[in-house]
Amino acid sequence: MKKIINQPENYVNEMLEGLYIAHPDLITYTNNDLRCLVTANKKEGKVGIATGGGSGHLPLFLGYVGKGMLDGCSVGDVFQSPSAEQMLAITKEIDSGAGVLYIYGNYNGDIFNFDMAAEMADFEEDIRVESVVAGEDVASAGPAAPGEKNTRRGVAGIFFVYKCAGAAADAMLDLDQVKAIAQKAAENVRTMGVALTPCIVPRVGKPGFELGEDEMEIGMGIHGETGIRRGRIEPADQIVEEMLDKIIADLPYVEGDEVDVLVNGLGATTLDEQYIVTRKINDVLSQKRIHVHKYYVGEYVTSLEMAGFSISLLKLDDELKKYMEAPAQTPFFVQL
Amino acid sequence: MKKIINQPENYVNEMLEGLYIAHPDLITYTNNDLRCLVTANKKEGKVGIATGGGSGHLPLFLGYVGKGMLDGCSVGDVFQSPSAEQMLAITKEIDSGAGVLYIYGNYNGDIFNFDMAAEMADFEEDIRVESVVAGEDVASAGPAAPGEKNTRRGVAGIFFVYKCAGAAADAMLDLDQVKAIAQKAAENVRTMGVALTPCIVPRVGKPGFELGEDEMEIGMGIHGETGIRRGRIEPADQIVEEMLDKIIADLPYVEGDEVDVLVNGLGATTLDEQYIVTRKINDVLSQKRIHVHKYYVGEYVTSLEMAGFSISLLKLDDELKKYMEAPAQTPFFVQL
Repeated sequence: MKKIINQPENYVNEMLEGLYIAHPDLITYTNNDLRCLVTANKKEGKVGIATGGGSGHLPLFLGYVGKGMLDGCSVGDVFQSPSAEQMLAITKEIDSGAGVLYIYGNYNGDIFNFDMAAEMADFEEDIRVESVVAGEDVASAGPAAPGEKNTRRGVAGIFFVYKCAGAAADAMLDLDQVKAIAQKAAENVRTMGVALTPCIVPRVGKPGFELGEDEMEIGMGIHGETGIRRGRIEPADQIVEEMLDKIIADLPYVEGDEVDVLVNGLGATTLDEQYIVTRKINDVLSQKRIHVHKYYVGEYVTSLEMAGFSISLLKLDDELKKYMEAPAQTPFFVQL
Repeated sequence: MKKIINQPENYVNEMLEGLYIAHPDLITYTNNDLRCLVTANKKEGKVGIATGGGSGHLPLFLGYVGKGMLDGCSVGDVFQSPSAEQMLAITKEIDSGAGVLYIYGNYNGDIFNFDMAAEMADFEEDIRVESVVAGEDVASAGPAAPGEKNTRRGVAGIFFVYKCAGAAADAMLDLDQVKAIAQKAAENVRTMGVALTPCIVPRVGKPGFELGEDEMEIGMGIHGETGIRRGRIEPADQIVEEMLDKIIADLPYVEGDEVDVLVNGLGATTLDEQYIVTRKINDVLSQKRIHVHKYYVGEYVTSLEMAGFSISLLKLDDELKKYMEAPAQTPFFVQL
């Protein structure tokens, strides 16, 4: 395992210590627990927004706490859910009477703990909590049938949900309105990824799966969950076409739509490659007359040092566009 | 070679096409050549600042063209210098009568071409050009003796030189003043890196060197240049101590100094690890009573998908601090 770490069991806490040292103007922690991260700039009267999840995905999740986005994030071990108690402590800290919205990815551990935290907040603290679950990976399951639960994994598209909801809360909308905007963003985003190499969880010390020297896995999840197919690695343009075919057909995105596009590096893939991918995405969307409002390119949601990338599309309307364009300032995302 | 690319010979131009698609508000190109990148927001009367160098280091070099930093960047093939003609075309485009400052790394190919471009600008175009060469890697050579040339490689510390010079030019200082500030920043920065894995130049298709499964190389350069020593990989804290010992003793940085610190990921190393390193840097500098004004953490200068990181310290005075704090907006660096 080639990592620049000390004892693997100290990995998450030492990472957090470094984060608080580097960004004291933006983030701090509550409950005397490094893993209960909250904004250093609480805005009174605003709906609080909390997220949470396992470590190993920086800048997700905690990196989006800051002005115009999120107010708190509970931090789990690598690829593990944080506890309901941690979520509750953050909820109490960030609530200022307008209630709290939870936004998190569609994983069983997170759902269980966020649901429990929401109940405790309601019964014990009289804080109203609503939740929006992001699950937009088209490779992970089919779309939910009417009335059924969405079983898709949440991956990089949650960035768009954070951005829209964060801007709506910052504009002092109430909890129901902020939830509706988060829900609309979640329903209009679709993602698909491809992995070229595995990653190593520090406490485990060896890769969670193997991929041959010339292999890729299309549709793999950000914890190494099985994708749609394995095959020999193909030219970038061909990979992008296959991914966009699946993404575009799913919502579907159609001629005349306007979208924001997130090209997300999973960890070890260079920015060069992400821009080569961007070029091809632009070709395909131009041909289909889907208009791109803005490209976001870089590492937004990683899987430790995995090589690969994902593409996310968010279908915009005037409301979502307004919130996507609003300014934000977090340790990892600054928009003027 | 596991990369998301098309034909290796199209790597740089396809990357550039993606860049222009993603950031049309900030960058464009001149001379009908994708590799002659210039700002989309030319500020009349301002000293122009140009850089240039080989590809494979994103966000270096071109990613720092934008408001409050650089005005142009000539883009070479991976790890290759761009041509003097490309540098000249950019010089002509960004000059608005106040002259142009070249800031680039201490590599023979770049020096040769930038010197030739400066001569052509002077003789053929009557544009005054001055140059500042960044060479601050303490592992690459000893300090220059009085009156001798600096033979140290320029690595991640050039970010600080760009930032200070860019802010000074944006404040409408004249060419001599902007050059003096760039020179002061260059003289007060020191860097050292460590590599854990090699990287692969796309046209070559195989690693430029090999490192054993449990090996690291302290002091390696960003093109794989030989470092100070190879050895078994050590705990993060021990690596940081060794690197900081060399960096601090070199300037030297002493008790009471104030510094900005850049913790730079070389490509495949996670942000988690960069923050684990940040924590230890803060310990060491606190003990030595060297005050940290601000930490910059992330991928600022990469070596394709190399794993490893570097540490750079910039000793501040009131003037450099003012220019480091000034706002900037480029595709990869936004500061409010």
